Amino acid sequence: MTDHHLGTDHIHTVWDNALPPALTIEPGDTVTLDTLDASDGGVARRVATGDLTPPAGLVDVISRDLRPLRNGPRGHPLTGPISVEGAQPGDALRIEILDVRAADWGWTGCRPDGIGLLDAVLGAEGLQPYTHFWDLRARTHTEFLPGIRLPLAPFPGVIGVAPGATGPHPTSPPRQVGGNMDIRQLVAGSVLWLPVEVPGALLSAGDLHAAQGDGELSGTGIEMDGHLTLRVHVEKRAGITTPEFTTPTHGGSSRQWHVTTGHDPELMTAARIALRALLRRLEPRGLTLEQAYVLASACVDLKISQIVDAPNYTVSAFLPLDIFTGH
Amino acid sequence: MTDHHLGTDHIHTVWDNALPPALTIEPGDTVTLDTLDASDGGVARRVATGDLTPPAGLVDVISRDLRPLRNGPRGHPLTGPISVEGAQPGDALRIEILDVRAADWGWTGCRPDGIGLLDAVLGAEGLQPYTHFWDLRARTHTEFLPGIRLPLAPFPGVIGVAPGATGPHPTSPPRQVGGNMDIRQLVAGSVLWLPVEVPGALLSAGDLHAAQGDGELSGTGIEMDGHLTLRVHVEKRAGITTPEFTTPTHGGSSRQWHVTTGHDPELMTAARIALRALLRRLEPRGLTLEQAYVLASACVDLKISQIVDAPNYTVSAFLPLDIFTGH
Repeated sequence: MTDHHLGTDHIHTVWDNALPPALTIEPGDTVTLDTLDASDGGVARRVATGDLTPPAGLVDVISRDLRPLRNGPRGHPLTGPISVEGAQPGDALRIEILDVRAADWGWTGCRPDGIGLLDAVLGAEGLQPYTHFWDLRARTHTEFLPGIRLPLAPFPGVIGVAPGATGPHPTSPPRQVGGNMDIRQLVAGSVLWLPVEVPGALLSAGDLHAAQGDGELSGTGIEMDGHLTLRVHVEKRAGITTPEFTTPTHGGSSRQWHVTTGHDPELMTAARIALRALLRRLEPRGLTLEQAYVLASACVDLKISQIVDAPNYTVSAFLPLDIFTGH
Repeated sequence: MTDHHLGTDHIHTVWDNALPPALTIEPGDTVTLDTLDASDGGVARRVATGDLTPPAGLVDVISRDLRPLRNGPRGHPLTGPISVEGAQPGDALRIEILDVRAADWGWTGCRPDGIGLLDAVLGAEGLQPYTHFWDLRARTHTEFLPGIRLPLAPFPGVIGVAPGATGPHPTSPPRQVGGNMDIRQLVAGSVLWLPVEVPGALLSAGDLHAAQGDGELSGTGIEMDGHLTLRVHVEKRAGITTPEFTTPTHGGSSRQWHVTTGHDPELMTAARIALRALLRRLEPRGLTLEQAYVLASACVDLKISQIVDAPNYTVSAFLPLDIFTGH
């Protein structure tokens, strides 16, 4: 059980199973990744070096420099890939998210010609490009304006393994191997399962967010540089076909949730993928298919995790584990 | 401020603004509605009279008798309509949900040819028609099977006012005037705003559920007879165009939420309607359009409230009111 570290000298901006591993680890090892924000680290790095003093006077500079990243030729800067010894297609990586550390500053933007849910509608109403800078130094919360304060709950916007299909794949859409899922419940204390499609799995992560609502409505969360610590295991022949996770974060009615996800251009299809995977998770508990379906109708919650990462949108199905009183 | 009562001798099964009011009330009055479950009261009434002794042996009888209601000619049995003095098109009804009382028994069903999200997929895998009966007499929780226990959180599946368009309208799809929204957060303690389209508003409700997940995945929640107590107000020229509500129920990060809803055949469009309405709710707080959009991206949650009430599906946008520390 070794502790590894991977710095920002190991960045890639496409998914590609031909990329050489930046690091090879054993199952059970931990690794801390330094990650860059979606604008390629520009904001936090410049603040750190004194090149920027947010927010006054620098908004225009940053807004101009923030590349319309996910519409452009380059994708999110991801740290990796990490090869995991013994991981083979058909297995799953089980990834404990141990720690997510935020930078001192983050940003959230909107623009009339971007990827946000209402860009076209609001653009017609006069929406202007805008970048808000968040002071994250209090760690537990951040002030938006006087009298408006948000709790912080940092998580990796992108975490995934290499697709089995050869060639480069853009980072914007999440897939059945994960990626830019933007699922805000993947906070420290969560455990994520990803289907492995290539030997070694080739895990990468990045695009940390200090906070975000389910949906990522304007196209950005609170974007930031940061540090992500993971413990990685291999589950042989796990039989999962879409990312799943457990999390302590969703609502007050359960302390832990098991969550399945669907990623598809149609939200309806994404919901069907997530629910089918969730019903499979109920099979080992001895329920008939009918019982599982009816139970899900009575207690499983559908959330739109992100509605901006075209062409694939993410629906997550949350099963409250507290309903199982026998364990 | 008068307390009224409306019994199940005042039931209608379509929305129609030509229906004569069963009751006329003043703004500020309260009314308690006796309501029938979506199978027209068959289950609870027969249990009450001793005609049924759930669950053993009677499952087949009930399953046969449960009309495929929302696919059939008759709609949900709704109690009403209630005319509210002074309500005019352009106003909103503000409805305090004071109490939701469950019956002793409820049911949840699935069928391969029904309205559930996975009926076709699971039908091909051999799904059989199935009805589960829930013993609700413990009031706070119900046991599904030994070792599986769900908390109860009763709410009205249907609550709405008459559409402005003349003629009968089916009860299955919710609309901009509410109806079969199946929003599980409309528990006691919530406050619902509905746009008024006809003089008197013509409020009706029914189809109470003892519990349900966001989505109502198999097409039914825990369906039951019950009693619903509301206090009804009129807000003149409220300027709302889609149902909105406040609720104490969603997640642990806020004690109160303001929620806007969208109802549309396309989930993407429903989400856009909900978000546009939510941004309007931020305007009075002095935010620019850009600030409102960015703030929503950082903290507003999209939920799929129901994905089964064709042709309209419901997306709800949840704003955590605890972020506003100034009040």
